[in-house]
Amino acid sequence: MPTGQRPRIVIIGAGFGGLSVVRSLRKAHVDITVIDRTNHHLFQPLLYQVATAGLSPGDIAHPIRSILRSMTNVHVVLDDVERIDNADRLVVGSHATYPYDALIIATGARHSYFGHDDWEAFAPGLKDLNDALLIRDRLLRTFEEAERFVGSDLLRELLTFVVVGGGPTGVELAGAIAEISRKTMLPDFPRLSADDIRVVLIEGADRILTSFDPRLSTRAVEQLQSLGVEVVVGGIVSNITATSVTVGQQVIPTRNVLWAAGNRASSLIGTLTAPKDRAGRVLVNDDCSLPGYTNTYVIGDAAHFEQDGRPLPGVAQVAMQQGAYVGRLLARRPSRQAPFRYKDLGSMATIGRARAIVEIGRLRLSGLLAWLMWAGLHVVQLISFRNRLRVLIEWGWYYVTFQPGARLLLRERNRRPS
Amino acid sequence: MPTGQRPRIVIIGAGFGGLSVVRSLRKAHVDITVIDRTNHHLFQPLLYQVATAGLSPGDIAHPIRSILRSMTNVHVVLDDVERIDNADRLVVGSHATYPYDALIIATGARHSYFGHDDWEAFAPGLKDLNDALLIRDRLLRTFEEAERFVGSDLLRELLTFVVVGGGPTGVELAGAIAEISRKTMLPDFPRLSADDIRVVLIEGADRILTSFDPRLSTRAVEQLQSLGVEVVVGGIVSNITATSVTVGQQVIPTRNVLWAAGNRASSLIGTLTAPKDRAGRVLVNDDCSLPGYTNTYVIGDAAHFEQDGRPLPGVAQVAMQQGAYVGRLLARRPSRQAPFRYKDLGSMATIGRARAIVEIGRLRLSGLLAWLMWAGLHVVQLISFRNRLRVLIEWGWYYVTFQPGARLLLRERNRRPS
Repeated sequence: MPTGQRPRIVIIGAGFGGLSVVRSLRKAHVDITVIDRTNHHLFQPLLYQVATAGLSPGDIAHPIRSILRSMTNVHVVLDDVERIDNADRLVVGSHATYPYDALIIATGARHSYFGHDDWEAFAPGLKDLNDALLIRDRLLRTFEEAERFVGSDLLRELLTFVVVGGGPTGVELAGAIAEISRKTMLPDFPRLSADDIRVVLIEGADRILTSFDPRLSTRAVEQLQSLGVEVVVGGIVSNITATSVTVGQQVIPTRNVLWAAGNRASSLIGTLTAPKDRAGRVLVNDDCSLPGYTNTYVIGDAAHFEQDGRPLPGVAQVAMQQGAYVGRLLARRPSRQAPFRYKDLGSMATIGRARAIVEIGRLRLSGLLAWLMWAGLHVVQLISFRNRLRVLIEWGWYYVTFQPGARLLLRERNRRPS
Repeated sequence: MPTGQRPRIVIIGAGFGGLSVVRSLRKAHVDITVIDRTNHHLFQPLLYQVATAGLSPGDIAHPIRSILRSMTNVHVVLDDVERIDNADRLVVGSHATYPYDALIIATGARHSYFGHDDWEAFAPGLKDLNDALLIRDRLLRTFEEAERFVGSDLLRELLTFVVVGGGPTGVELAGAIAEISRKTMLPDFPRLSADDIRVVLIEGADRILTSFDPRLSTRAVEQLQSLGVEVVVGGIVSNITATSVTVGQQVIPTRNVLWAAGNRASSLIGTLTAPKDRAGRVLVNDDCSLPGYTNTYVIGDAAHFEQDGRPLPGVAQVAMQQGAYVGRLLARRPSRQAPFRYKDLGSMATIGRARAIVEIGRLRLSGLLAWLMWAGLHVVQLISFRNRLRVLIEWGWYYVTFQPGARLLLRERNRRPS
């Protein structure tokens, strides 16, 4: 607990950004309070595998308190932050208020429907474990329902999966859904045939995975198509209902739409008076500090950081590097340090079993080798040996048997609105 | 699907009983339809470990369709059975009706509150994965809440865990809660102390685990006490509220009550016109057939089977043996066969890490050896090599680190009524 002697640093959010701040303050003479709405740190890059029944929530999440247990200068609390009181330097939560000398806001992002919030009921997004379990339930329930409607038009509607958004998450979701639909579900549902299943990936730009080299986008499209995914580029979604998605002039009848298109900074960011971009992210200074606020920093998906005239992408790497930067800055305050600069260590996306693309500087890979790099990198990044072992077993098992490990219907009340 | 040629056998419930019927009909010339409300078979003996964050749901559940995939004469459907139409030999579900020539009802049991259904909101029971996840959430949330009330009376109320019912489930829950509270949670909550935690196990009879030899009951009490569990026998619970449990004259202030006391046959059994016992189980004939119904059999927890003047216990062994018996009977109908007779293969209960009791005929064991037997037997009984491997890893990991693998708060809406 804050002694009042040492500077009190409050960190909101225990994602990649928040935790990297804490780690870089490991040896600093400060009192740290970490506030999160949930009790676990989530390894978001693998969240889509929970949504597609490949991994269990416990495989990619770890209690924040256990992660930080060894750090005696850290106090972890479960709370919902409602607002920041800059004048009195207080974080106001639903359970308590937390005084601070320095504040780091690392609250990440939720998905955004570009003003069509009514779409969310029909097109859930994927940001936390609850989202993933909801999507998993709908996915599994769909096949059970479909079998009851063999021969009717409803069958096609049910088994048409539309993923909106051709970024890494959308690509990974579309690939995984196409793969488990054919390889895992069909053998369990003898009355359904591969022709009944349709997976469509819709991207508004002229190509998917725009953050990658165009050649890799092409590879990704080929790999998706080899899994039976229809890729639509330049497709603007104008409407989503319980039974259809409208793309340009085309209406796709479907009961399964997933949203991977847009992000919006968390609701707490909305309460800040600082200038924001269209996605609701606050425009931060070159040291990640928040204009108009005292000793307040915003990092990760909640921040709009301009570098070389372009905002940094919303990826874990940016959040972690910003977290480390702010941590160093706080450790030896008040001395000024050079502006933050993001160093792109490369990016990867996986499309399915043994399918992925990797771009590291000039190096570009696709296919099995890329997938092995992707798998290796993600496993070592997982927190705790146990999670690494579990995920490796899951992947190995799935690689051989196509039997993902978490095909469980849990929420009986989880009915699709229609 | 039923061809109309071969006898149509409908099995309601894919628990231990239902699946053992299917297995024993593997080679029979019959068409089998298995109906369950969920898509997975649950290994209930380890359910308490999901409720206490030790295992993930995926570790002890497996999709029914995958289990029976290799059996070409089996059709699996996800449906809620509403009633049985004996006159027309129809099972009426919420999605469809299923004609049958022979029917097996293996729908198991829910927990019963002896007419105090209002207690359920404060004292959840443990029968399926949803129950387990609800209990897990309350358990984990309790410690987060408790930390906010250090120094107030509420702290004690929150950290007092009362388990009602001294059968195997109650004993296992109480032992696991006491163990993870002290070994796992306390190190993560430095502001809480062991003195704040109280775990009480209440049994109405004059000893716990009445189905075991009295000496083993005594061992179990010793083992529970070594974990810090207070064992109350001959304690009749007269009231449960959001903040207390009343046992005889004593009122225990608590916000955490778990119910492991009574079972009641599933709601479908309630719709049957056959005579029932106090727990709502139907009284079946000595061949497990249902009086007054044609070719209808009830097995497992839903049935009251009298043997040597006493009803058989509601354990997996009984359900499996009855299932195999009925399967054999149906495979070579109409020839009559000898009455069903339960062969007790022994029983076990685990109290915590390296603590258990085992009774097999005259053999009685407790402590580490009993625990190893318990662990070994339960692992080999799990469905799929993958689940065995996962559970072994979880147990090995926990044995060494006391860090159970699934300490996740998921349902933000899961608030305790108060």
